[in-house]
Amino acid sequence: MSQALIIAVVGDGQCDAATAAEAEAVGRTLAEAGATVVCGGLGGVMEAACRGAKSAGGTTIGILPGLDRRSANPYVDMPIVTGMGQARNLIVVRTGQAVVAVHGRYGTLSEIAHALKAGLPVVGLGTWELSRPGERVNAIQRAATPEEAAEMAIALAWREAAG
Amino acid sequence: MSQALIIAVVGDGQCDAATAAEAEAVGRTLAEAGATVVCGGLGGVMEAACRGAKSAGGTTIGILPGLDRRSANPYVDMPIVTGMGQARNLIVVRTGQAVVAVHGRYGTLSEIAHALKAGLPVVGLGTWELSRPGERVNAIQRAATPEEAAEMAIALAWREAAG
Amino acid sequence: MSQALIIAVVGDGQCDAATAAEAEAVGRTLAEAGATVVCGGLGGVMEAACRGAKSAGGTTIGILPGLDRRSANPYVDMPIVTGMGQARNLIVVRTGQAVVAVHGRYGTLSEIAHALKAGLPVVGLGTWELSRPGERVNAIQRAATPEEAAEMAIALAWREAAG
Amino acid sequence: MSQALIIAVVGDGQCDAATAAEAEAVGRTLAEAGATVVCGGLGGVMEAACRGAKSAGGTTIGILPGLDRRSANPYVDMPIVTGMGQARNLIVVRTGQAVVAVHGRYGTLSEIAHALKAGLPVVGLGTWELSRPGERVNAIQRAATPEEAAEMAIALAWREAAG
Repeated sequence: MSQALIIAVVGDGQCDAATAAEAEAVGRTLAEAGATVVCGGLGGVMEAACRGAKSAGGTTIGILPGLDRRSANPYVDMPIVTGMGQARNLIVVRTGQAVVAVHGRYGTLSEIAHALKAGLPVVGLGTWELSRPGERVNAIQRAATPEEAAEMAIALAWREAAG
Repeated sequence: MSQALIIAVVGDGQCDAATAAEAEAVGRTLAEAGATVVCGGLGGVMEAACRGAKSAGGTTIGILPGLDRRSANPYVDMPIVTGMGQARNLIVVRTGQAVVAVHGRYGTLSEIAHALKAGLPVVGLGTWELSRPGERVNAIQRAATPEEAAEMAIALAWREAAG
Repeated sequence: MSQALIIAVVGDGQCDAATAAEAEAVGRTLAEAGATVVCGGLGGVMEAACRGAKSAGGTTIGILPGLDRRSANPYVDMPIVTGMGQARNLIVVRTGQAVVAVHGRYGTLSEIAHALKAGLPVVGLGTWELSRPGERVNAIQRAATPEEAAEMAIALAWREAAG
Repeated sequence: MSQALIIAVVGDGQCDAATAAEAEAVGRTLAEAGATVVCGGLGGVMEAACRGAKSAGGTTIGILPGLDRRSANPYVDMPIVTGMGQARNLIVVRTGQAVVAVHGRYGTLSEIAHALKAGLPVVGLGTWELSRPGERVNAIQRAATPEEAAEMAIALAWREAAG
């Protein structure tokens, strides 16, 4: 199989400059390692991750919620037009062989949940923490830096692909 | 509008007897108050909630992930056949005017996240707790008993409908 | 299983008075026979079919494409909120145990195609005719009147349910 | 915008050698013209179109119905994992800027219908013919050869993109 590894990057559609810098570093590190980036195709963390990937010569896929391919950010190579709104979140995480969550709000939480339900590795950078009454649930692998998040995701995806 | 209030009940497809008893009480209390129950249509918490609703003469809708209407539990009045797998989770919560989460695992977490993203009220009974680094996120209204959970959901749904 | 038979009625969201009268008669005849009507929940043929069903004391389900339950026509008892746009067409036909197509345009054609792909009986009233190069494809059962269309759909659905 | 034109190729998942040869020529001609091919990612016409595109150095996207990326045919560069069954048909046609239908059965008919509903150009090669009672509906542009089908689709897609 000569297909490139595909890693999903999820996060908010609007974000501050510091978060964008983190997402850009995630995308760049993934592309430097030869991985394709898949995301929701819009702005904020999605756009920053795509910009980072393109800066390193990588390939990017944007799974769009709406019906207009022109809603994709300018760093998306392959706009996938779903017209299914938030249901496209499931496609983003399933298309990835691992998921990197960069901060994020409820949409990102839904992506983390769908990924964990599907048994996909999830690496978190400043993102949600999960617990049940009286019990911390450590299902998200925590990374300290964007570069570490990207590298962990690639390592976990290879382990899954091999296993 | 003479439509009945519709409340979503979400939780695991397999559960122990204590959790089933809670879900059944949620469904019964909702039906006693005149609300229709919508759920994912399968077993565990979904089946118990439907059984409770039917015991009080209520109406139940089951949004099925697969293609076979016969996968619905025997207490579903209206089996909705989606064939869209976990994407049906979004339909369950959107069809409700409020959501009651009874314990639950990652599928339930995805439903909580989609409901919060959509701005729907979410009432939790022994379910997930959310935080971000250094910050507890109190977006889920906590109930102490199944009856309280059902009553809170109805009150919150009416407030939304009025607002 | 005490669930009522569910029959899908599909057709255009805007229609002339003659077509609406046909759709209303389909809905009324289905309800008189005890069947629940499922449709796309909006106007035109969908609204007329629901109005007919309610005039005979029946039950109606509307599978909505958007996110707002208030987009349902006033004769929908159970608004199912998908937010998935045209993808809800698949849910409409799969939820039915047979499909009645009343005239219709491309959306209706998609519903006919999905129903035939799923092996569901399709009854047509003034609707699409299908052929491949040099070969008429008679997969749609043609009815001459709305009453006949409803009765054929019920008979075909019972045959499937029994088989 | 430097994104390549994306053209959808739709057709049956199982086909005879003559149909496969046509689909392969469609894919090859599209790739020779610089277009990316999107399809449903499985066998038959989908696999032949991807094989043709790869033989000319093109890029291919496969929108998969299931949950397993390994269900993609070996000529898919970008497997998009939807887990939404036939609902992925809508994504295939919407991701294309024009659609080429190669023969095909009911799944293909649903894709033609969704494309026409969305206002996308559809070019047909030995595929469905549509009519309504007493009226032929010439919404599908007919091509005589695979090469002509590919060229027509590209020309129509450019016209849309320009308009």
